[in-house]
Amino acid sequence: MFADNCLKTDLYELTMAAGYYQNKVDLRAVFELFCYKAPLNRSYFVACGLEQAVNYILSLRFSGQDVDFLRNQPVFRTVKPGFFEYLRNFRFSGNVWAMKEGEIFFPNEPIIQVEAPIIEAQILETYLLSIVHIQTLTATKACRVVQAANRGRKKRGVVDFGSRRAHGPEAAALAARAAYIGGCIGTSNVYAGKMFNIPVFGTMAHSWVSAFDNEEEAFLKYYEVFPENTVLLIDTYDTVKGAKKAVKLEKDINGVRLDSGDIEVLSKKVRKILNKCKLNNAKIIASGNLNEYKIEKLIKKKAPIDIFGVGTDMVTSRDLPSLDLVYKLVQIEDKDSNIKFKAKRSKGKVMIPAKKQVFRKYARNGLFAKDIIGLFSQEAPRDAQPLLTQVIKDGQLAGGLPNTATVRNYAQKRLSLLPKSCCNVHHSRYLKTVFSKELKLIWGQRPS
Amino acid sequence: MFADNCLKTDLYELTMAAGYYQNKVDLRAVFELFCYKAPLNRSYFVACGLEQAVNYILSLRFSGQDVDFLRNQPVFRTVKPGFFEYLRNFRFSGNVWAMKEGEIFFPNEPIIQVEAPIIEAQILETYLLSIVHIQTLTATKACRVVQAANRGRKKRGVVDFGSRRAHGPEAAALAARAAYIGGCIGTSNVYAGKMFNIPVFGTMAHSWVSAFDNEEEAFLKYYEVFPENTVLLIDTYDTVKGAKKAVKLEKDINGVRLDSGDIEVLSKKVRKILNKCKLNNAKIIASGNLNEYKIEKLIKKKAPIDIFGVGTDMVTSRDLPSLDLVYKLVQIEDKDSNIKFKAKRSKGKVMIPAKKQVFRKYARNGLFAKDIIGLFSQEAPRDAQPLLTQVIKDGQLAGGLPNTATVRNYAQKRLSLLPKSCCNVHHSRYLKTVFSKELKLIWGQRPS
Repeated sequence: MFADNCLKTDLYELTMAAGYYQNKVDLRAVFELFCYKAPLNRSYFVACGLEQAVNYILSLRFSGQDVDFLRNQPVFRTVKPGFFEYLRNFRFSGNVWAMKEGEIFFPNEPIIQVEAPIIEAQILETYLLSIVHIQTLTATKACRVVQAANRGRKKRGVVDFGSRRAHGPEAAALAARAAYIGGCIGTSNVYAGKMFNIPVFGTMAHSWVSAFDNEEEAFLKYYEVFPENTVLLIDTYDTVKGAKKAVKLEKDINGVRLDSGDIEVLSKKVRKILNKCKLNNAKIIASGNLNEYKIEKLIKKKAPIDIFGVGTDMVTSRDLPSLDLVYKLVQIEDKDSNIKFKAKRSKGKVMIPAKKQVFRKYARNGLFAKDIIGLFSQEAPRDAQPLLTQVIKDGQLAGGLPNTATVRNYAQKRLSLLPKSCCNVHHSRYLKTVFSKELKLIWGQRPS
Repeated sequence: MFADNCLKTDLYELTMAAGYYQNKVDLRAVFELFCYKAPLNRSYFVACGLEQAVNYILSLRFSGQDVDFLRNQPVFRTVKPGFFEYLRNFRFSGNVWAMKEGEIFFPNEPIIQVEAPIIEAQILETYLLSIVHIQTLTATKACRVVQAANRGRKKRGVVDFGSRRAHGPEAAALAARAAYIGGCIGTSNVYAGKMFNIPVFGTMAHSWVSAFDNEEEAFLKYYEVFPENTVLLIDTYDTVKGAKKAVKLEKDINGVRLDSGDIEVLSKKVRKILNKCKLNNAKIIASGNLNEYKIEKLIKKKAPIDIFGVGTDMVTSRDLPSLDLVYKLVQIEDKDSNIKFKAKRSKGKVMIPAKKQVFRKYARNGLFAKDIIGLFSQEAPRDAQPLLTQVIKDGQLAGGLPNTATVRNYAQKRLSLLPKSCCNVHHSRYLKTVFSKELKLIWGQRPS
């Protein structure tokens, strides 16, 4: 997944690097990765992708072949050889702070903060954004789907089925990881299963059923190979008839899958057919263009579905296909330790200067109460928890990175602390976020 | 990009494979990859991703390590060892026909057709869909953006700026390739530049300008390093003031970039400032959340923009984040050469059985007139061109694959043959598509 990483970036990161190098710009910079407000139905975001981001930063090297490719690009014709030598010896030497992977965050809060010589910090931009964006986008979407599936007392599972419509095979694996962290119980993607130790689900497609002369034969032949893991796809011809054929096998099948038609009505009919034949433990799996909105409706109407397979809508975050995730220079420090605060002043977007920390306060019942965005250097407000902790120190990993299951547990624990007002999938109600006095002093104005 | 490919798939491809193997299902199958109607503002699709699809098919192997991973998955506990031996020796032995990469196609037309033992053809499904989906989606979107940019007589360039919001670093490179084929003049993505020999663009970000004490210094320092390739980003503080500082350098800059604010008004003001100082050749580049709809408006209002940098909207195909691209079993043939036609009968979607060919007819002026979807085995209708040609024969490459530039040329030539009615970005008006008598006989009904 991570070969040739050094070139997986926008050219301007490297032209700027050449410019900084050749002009001997010797500044220490702080860049912050954060998200502007989402335009639609999002009340929180789930920070996801830190493991890959850290691995990228620590392993970033420029091979001789890659440097030669750059040297031969017309744009670098006027750049002196020293810069290419610099690239050949590139190692990230700076510090990185980040929210724990799986943390819940809100607009304007830095989730990754890079402090390094400006040339090093700049070079990371595109790759960091790209690897964090896809996973944060998908984890956030997955949480919404899982929340919708778990309305009421009954726990239901959501499985990622999105690999075929994810944006390429790598995106499919990254989306599977993010969906798992967001609360899915597994994925159909085998590679993600191997790479991230995620449970993998899957049995048969319509082509299996079509390949045999009739459904009964297709069902039986499958059962004979997988007697412990048979989920029959029953909608290839007629869902109700398919269910009747499934019970007629008189086998202890694990479940049936419905992939089309009126899932509410069909799932109720199918449940009755299964129960009548004492297949009360056989699960009903529903799939086919599902999302949080449709799942919410199905559950309100008491469709007896145990597991939802969710694909395209989740891995493309169809109702919001991108987040306004950015990586911005917020301060520089010169050799004499003079600090200057930086913020781009672009119309319509408030950008906050200075190296920051996010302090989270909790209500008496343990739920999130509010976030205070403050200066990194300031004292933590009383009873508030700083969310950014150091993950890379002087170019070395500071402590280890949790595995994907641990990240998932953390995300799920943190999600359970979200106030209910943030859990309605139809509205955008962020947690209250305020700015510390210390930050406002530097900033010089109260944001809207 | 293509390591561990064998596991980058849905588990059910492999459980079905085990089922076919263990049941000795010895059928020759034909699967077709095609697209259902798009719900929104699409009048054509651009077939893209064939090179990667073919490379995947030809290189697909299961390593010992990967097979061991599968063997240890609980679901495979009941599968006999012979299947894992089969995987270790897997080689694709079948035939593949496809539309040329860059071909323009319409709903229900197969763009890739795989004919092979059913187990081999089935295993390819997920990866093929995933690698073709992202590129076909993006190439189609890019064509729309480029068409909007080229309204009227003046030719304008579109450059892919989407890497940071693409779905991960691999998706960024695939999207860059597809955008280039769709008509972009290049990309910001360096890796795509190296892999696919695409022109790479990029100069500076706001962080460059912010890092210096003032804009004049930032501009001059950049120019000194890149005197032949200086495009100044002038909107960090105030676009008009930025333009004035740019001309005050008295250097022969290549252009300026505007990334925020009212691009129409600002580009006109900036053009005047540049021309007044005899920088008539300096280009104006516009970027910042652009898409075909916004570009069309800008050009109608005569905004003097030479190059559009388009990112998020293009690489996520934001107005249509996925295509309904599927890979379906259409016929099987048994050992005695008996053929059975197959079509899933799912509600709301018409699926057409049988191994097909697409015949394109041309009007007298050379434009596309209509497509006839027929049987693969039938005679071509008079003056009609069959669009599917063989790319893999008995598991071997049949002829070579064109390079990306050649694919781009072909796509652009084909796009120029689209009737005008298909080129309005606000409507969905597909080319007329009919079904041949021969196909209808088999199908037994006229589709809606």
